[in-house]
Amino acid sequence: MRMVDVIAHKRDGGELSGEEITWFIREYTAGAIPDYQASALLMAVYLRGMNRRETVDLTLAMAHSGEMLDLHDVAPHIVDKHSSGGVGDKTSLVVLPLVAACGVPVGKMSGRGLGSSGGTLDKMESFRGWSSQLTLEQFKRQLAEIGLVLAGQTAALAPADGKLYALRDVTATVDNRALIAASIMSKKLAAGADAIVLDVKMGSGAFMPTVEAATDLAQLMVEIGQDAGRQTVALISDMNQPLGHAVGNALEVKEAIETLRGGGPADFWEHCQTVAAHMVRLAGAAATLDEACRLVSAARADGRGLAKFRQLIVAQGGDGRQVDDLSLLPTARYVEPLEATRSGYVAAMDTAELGWVCVRCGGGRLVKSDEVDPAVGFLLPIKIGDYVEAGQEIGVIHANDDMTLQQAQRDVPAAITVVDHPVPPRPLFYATIGNE
Amino acid sequence: MRMVDVIAHKRDGGELSGEEITWFIREYTAGAIPDYQASALLMAVYLRGMNRRETVDLTLAMAHSGEMLDLHDVAPHIVDKHSSGGVGDKTSLVVLPLVAACGVPVGKMSGRGLGSSGGTLDKMESFRGWSSQLTLEQFKRQLAEIGLVLAGQTAALAPADGKLYALRDVTATVDNRALIAASIMSKKLAAGADAIVLDVKMGSGAFMPTVEAATDLAQLMVEIGQDAGRQTVALISDMNQPLGHAVGNALEVKEAIETLRGGGPADFWEHCQTVAAHMVRLAGAAATLDEACRLVSAARADGRGLAKFRQLIVAQGGDGRQVDDLSLLPTARYVEPLEATRSGYVAAMDTAELGWVCVRCGGGRLVKSDEVDPAVGFLLPIKIGDYVEAGQEIGVIHANDDMTLQQAQRDVPAAITVVDHPVPPRPLFYATIGNE
Repeated sequence: MRMVDVIAHKRDGGELSGEEITWFIREYTAGAIPDYQASALLMAVYLRGMNRRETVDLTLAMAHSGEMLDLHDVAPHIVDKHSSGGVGDKTSLVVLPLVAACGVPVGKMSGRGLGSSGGTLDKMESFRGWSSQLTLEQFKRQLAEIGLVLAGQTAALAPADGKLYALRDVTATVDNRALIAASIMSKKLAAGADAIVLDVKMGSGAFMPTVEAATDLAQLMVEIGQDAGRQTVALISDMNQPLGHAVGNALEVKEAIETLRGGGPADFWEHCQTVAAHMVRLAGAAATLDEACRLVSAARADGRGLAKFRQLIVAQGGDGRQVDDLSLLPTARYVEPLEATRSGYVAAMDTAELGWVCVRCGGGRLVKSDEVDPAVGFLLPIKIGDYVEAGQEIGVIHANDDMTLQQAQRDVPAAITVVDHPVPPRPLFYATIGNE
Repeated sequence: MRMVDVIAHKRDGGELSGEEITWFIREYTAGAIPDYQASALLMAVYLRGMNRRETVDLTLAMAHSGEMLDLHDVAPHIVDKHSSGGVGDKTSLVVLPLVAACGVPVGKMSGRGLGSSGGTLDKMESFRGWSSQLTLEQFKRQLAEIGLVLAGQTAALAPADGKLYALRDVTATVDNRALIAASIMSKKLAAGADAIVLDVKMGSGAFMPTVEAATDLAQLMVEIGQDAGRQTVALISDMNQPLGHAVGNALEVKEAIETLRGGGPADFWEHCQTVAAHMVRLAGAAATLDEACRLVSAARADGRGLAKFRQLIVAQGGDGRQVDDLSLLPTARYVEPLEATRSGYVAAMDTAELGWVCVRCGGGRLVKSDEVDPAVGFLLPIKIGDYVEAGQEIGVIHANDDMTLQQAQRDVPAAITVVDHPVPPRPLFYATIGNE
């Protein structure tokens, strides 16, 4: 097989065979196909598309490009979740302990924040000493012992995805439905999931701008999961405003712990409960979604979820006292109010820009090598549909220097559109796709 | 400027600005943009296209990526020609000496054969000792002294083209109109041509399969030439059968010399005369194409063209006696007849396949590093429209080993379609485009 023929096949709008796709992924991962041929193929795929069969073949080839994790010696049925990323999305911190507390083992690999979206590992590193660097043996042992583990993605799983993602990032071939779906699903398949809950965000702070685009991507991922023999459910959720109130690593951790304690913002808890319930149901621990919801609520109400979260912190080297006493988590030097600049109804938020405000305060990364400041960020308790008065305090900014503080005090209100006429609130979810 | 933004601009069907194009070519030539980004852009250009303005900007940027030759201290008006390549296309060997003999200085850079098309330098190297390796100083001195020089392409001119062509070759982005036109014209502009005659071939032995495709490419190249301030004429010529009778390096040299002596195949002479006349007229040495034709004919009739050819051989280290005595040119061990396999009218030839027959005999290259055997090839005096009898000798094969000899005796007749009904002969030219 010659790579130039494979490229020409897709360039001319053809359907790549399973052999062509498997060969490409194998040889590219092995370094036998150079980046300049891979990027020409990626652009041809971007502009010509891939059908369901090609996308499934691509996903499977990428999943099999490295180790395929088998956790069945530790747990009979592995459930995983994936969020397409957003601002204030600390869902995993609440969902995973609750699901584990329901008796469903959860071994998850997570990523770091890049761009306006935060990352679960960055949030967890607000805890002194907590580490996501686990060997596969440590991963399995912890999963067996406490039923909950959260690790960094390992290069041993789906290495083709890591290599292709880095190339897509610099060749303007990132936002393609087939390539996104294959990237996400290949990692989930390689990580050994039997069932997968996908939280696909749409809106001003998400990758997908519309319900249609998010549904389209979700549908494809569900199809891939089904064709690969995994139970897969996708939720289309709103990201037209931050989830909950907190944006910023330690602030989000505090909000997650408050939620596990039975408090926290209503929208955030409802979101967590729904995602967790789908995982519990897919794992077979509940017969219906309603029953799963009740199990999840009970695990929160009696403190088992919070206890499981504390176990997770301690098992991976973190300081459990920071879970018990939130004042021990990192705090910022400046804590100042954010004020509305005009009166009216909150009609829209530039949620990605709100994410960038946090990044510019030091709470995220402009380039991969940036250090993250866990203490900074903001609390923004207002929601679309709320009425605000000019000069009213709409939130609180946490910053570690004067310049970013003042910048954020300008930028946060500027990212919020306020209008004269009433605006309906946003729903949390738009649709559920797949395995009911 | 970021390359990923330039790629995304073209990927989304945008028109690249002059700044974007110039920046890309400059940075890519300097090695500051990696091949994997360039190939993604090339695929986006392939699938999205470039308009006339973009193509002109690309051509000029590529031309200016290295030295811009200025020959005006040697000649007041520089005329160049380019052939899009074909089988049996030894036109330059006849045209250049005749134009020079008409008092129009010709300093040309040529290429080597690759694939089924032959190359002028390979043909010229049939002469013992003849070299195309000239310094720029030698090039200019010879142009001043004898008004005729033929050199290999130098990496100092349009280096971006060399680099991009190598990349296109392995990323399935070769056969795109804008990229082909920019590649050809950038070299001509950098080589200092004031006027350019383009011989664009169409047919079974050419890159362009139809008159429409060839006209389309020719039109674009003429527009580029005009926008760059050069007089440009394009001829659309037929390549549905080899030009003349001879295919193979030394065989083509012999046919060219016979033509300069006043003989040679009629189709080949008419083709040469037309191309040469356009060059003579564009140089201002004749007021009309008719007058230019007469000057060219006269230069052949009185032997000035042949004498100029001999000067070219000797000036670049070749053995002039091989011009005077064709039996001193390389000859093959086996010279055997080619026979028609059935009776009827010649309706079509797979001209590219005929070129490959010569390559398989050793007369061309499968890979760039292959040595070329100058002696091998064939003479095929039949033309489309001719009547042949089964078993009739339709040509002569020249080979240096038994195996390729027998293969060619099967393959040449197999590449010729013979039908029962009469077939009209093919025209030599289909159209003339540009500067009349």
